Amino acid sequence: MIPNNEHVQCLIIGSGPAGYTAAIYAARADLKPVLYTGIIEGGQLTQTTEVENYPGYPEGIQGPAMMQNFKKQAERLGADIRFGYVTSVDFSSLPHKITIDDSQVITADAVIISTGASAKWLGLESEQKYNGFGVSACAVCDGYFFKGQDVAIVGAGDTAAEEATYLAKLCRKVYMLVRRNEFRASKAMINRVLNTPNIELLYDTETVEILGDGLNVTRVKVINNKTNVEKELAVTGFFVAIGHHPNTDIFRGWIDMDAVGYIKTRPGTTRTNVAGVFCCGDAQDHIYRQAVTAAGSGCMAAIDAERYLAAKHHAVTIDSITVN
Amino acid sequence: MIPNNEHVQCLIIGSGPAGYTAAIYAARADLKPVLYTGIIEGGQLTQTTEVENYPGYPEGIQGPAMMQNFKKQAERLGADIRFGYVTSVDFSSLPHKITIDDSQVITADAVIISTGASAKWLGLESEQKYNGFGVSACAVCDGYFFKGQDVAIVGAGDTAAEEATYLAKLCRKVYMLVRRNEFRASKAMINRVLNTPNIELLYDTETVEILGDGLNVTRVKVINNKTNVEKELAVTGFFVAIGHHPNTDIFRGWIDMDAVGYIKTRPGTTRTNVAGVFCCGDAQDHIYRQAVTAAGSGCMAAIDAERYLAAKHHAVTIDSITVN
Repeated sequence: MIPNNEHVQCLIIGSGPAGYTAAIYAARADLKPVLYTGIIEGGQLTQTTEVENYPGYPEGIQGPAMMQNFKKQAERLGADIRFGYVTSVDFSSLPHKITIDDSQVITADAVIISTGASAKWLGLESEQKYNGFGVSACAVCDGYFFKGQDVAIVGAGDTAAEEATYLAKLCRKVYMLVRRNEFRASKAMINRVLNTPNIELLYDTETVEILGDGLNVTRVKVINNKTNVEKELAVTGFFVAIGHHPNTDIFRGWIDMDAVGYIKTRPGTTRTNVAGVFCCGDAQDHIYRQAVTAAGSGCMAAIDAERYLAAKHHAVTIDSITVN
Repeated sequence: MIPNNEHVQCLIIGSGPAGYTAAIYAARADLKPVLYTGIIEGGQLTQTTEVENYPGYPEGIQGPAMMQNFKKQAERLGADIRFGYVTSVDFSSLPHKITIDDSQVITADAVIISTGASAKWLGLESEQKYNGFGVSACAVCDGYFFKGQDVAIVGAGDTAAEEATYLAKLCRKVYMLVRRNEFRASKAMINRVLNTPNIELLYDTETVEILGDGLNVTRVKVINNKTNVEKELAVTGFFVAIGHHPNTDIFRGWIDMDAVGYIKTRPGTTRTNVAGVFCCGDAQDHIYRQAVTAAGSGCMAAIDAERYLAAKHHAVTIDSITVN
């Protein structure tokens, strides 16, 4: 049983690479961290298949197995990993208050936010069916698996344009599906796409269905929303690049974030504008979003939290000496 | 044979976690990276023993084995890893010029600096004999291995004071050896040390020899340099915290660095003040210096380099179209 009104030194919210790495470092610094996993234990990587760019696994590893390793390591070093969901927070005074599963309030001296981000999807059933088997939301992560092959990418913003040109260097042909008859990307990025010979732009085009052989993607059915003409493209990869949503809704109003909801941290640190609250991983990163960058920032958050708590502890000690 | 006047898209200098991770990402982005290892292939981690805080190895791993894994992974993905030492650079015009082993000049469109830093040591033979077997230059890395034990730490600066208080939370007793009769640390940090009951400060004290049973450290012989009285302290851990030296001497004059020699990067990126030159790992980080933070920044450097090259390539393409 978890007691009510429990107080912890260091509470970590989220269980992706950032959260577990923060837990490893916080545990080894004897902060006795408690980590709440959120609904998707292990984060976005548990929804992928092969990961070959996280350094340390020469032959690659499956995403879910990798996150099991992270979890085991954090637990072996003494982190208290709990399945549960943070439903609200109150950062108005110290200690910080965090409500778990709408029912229990925990107070914490330091809070590490590592709630990640969620890729936006088109909402097709076949998209989820083939997720990790041809469907991906990350060209940098998965583009290499489609070297020399034909792929399609959906999106019209800067990220989509950047990922399309990234894929064009690796793949034989890249179909870029744009729903309207124009881009939302910057002029420079549009020019880049237009000047890449092996990108074929399909305007006014929406995805009807991702088709496969039951195991992997083999083609995609698209429709021209002006002419209603359908056609199939023979592709083995289907990239969705219509944006991400940082999982930071519960922190809104308590902490500085940008217009999209990414939490702002002081450059070169994981400190937020609220004392004792740190943020790492994709909840504060819309640029790199890699497992290893998230892990690196998780380590930073634990070190920042440890130093914050040490300084705070000693300030209190000195205050009480002065008073006596 | 490596041809003279070889040109590469992406040259990586250094073979620690940052360099190999940059190589993994650059290879998967088809930048065909060439990495020069430097003299210490694998970097600082090859001089350690057990690493238990790099996320992904639930039971820990030996430092040299871990770096072998990183190297294997980079090679499997197509990086060209070469044993060699960069002796000078010329960043005055594009492409950048890099001299290897004082004999061969390579030109590169993008350069990733990941030359790391070296811990400063006292210079005792016994210090190197027991390095990794009780002797350490990183409290955050290795403090946990001495939980509940007695340790000594040498140093008088802010980092030494911070590491002493870090160790004091984990260890039973911490002897802090200060060569002079005063600290160089800030007042706040000195207060922290003075207010930590299980730190015993020994001023005017120098280390004569680190003693052990042949396998591990068991005690340390120190001398008071005012009274010349020697004594032995029973400790199992001996931490050296007298500073680090970033391995950036060859870049001096070519690139912005701070007074100590750490290379300056634009906050939140790995970009330096020189177009096409990126820096990651301990060569630009005196705050966190962990394997996983270095690896994270190595990934960032490869992504930054890829985006720089893509933008440059397309600018050239557009220019040539305009000209024609």
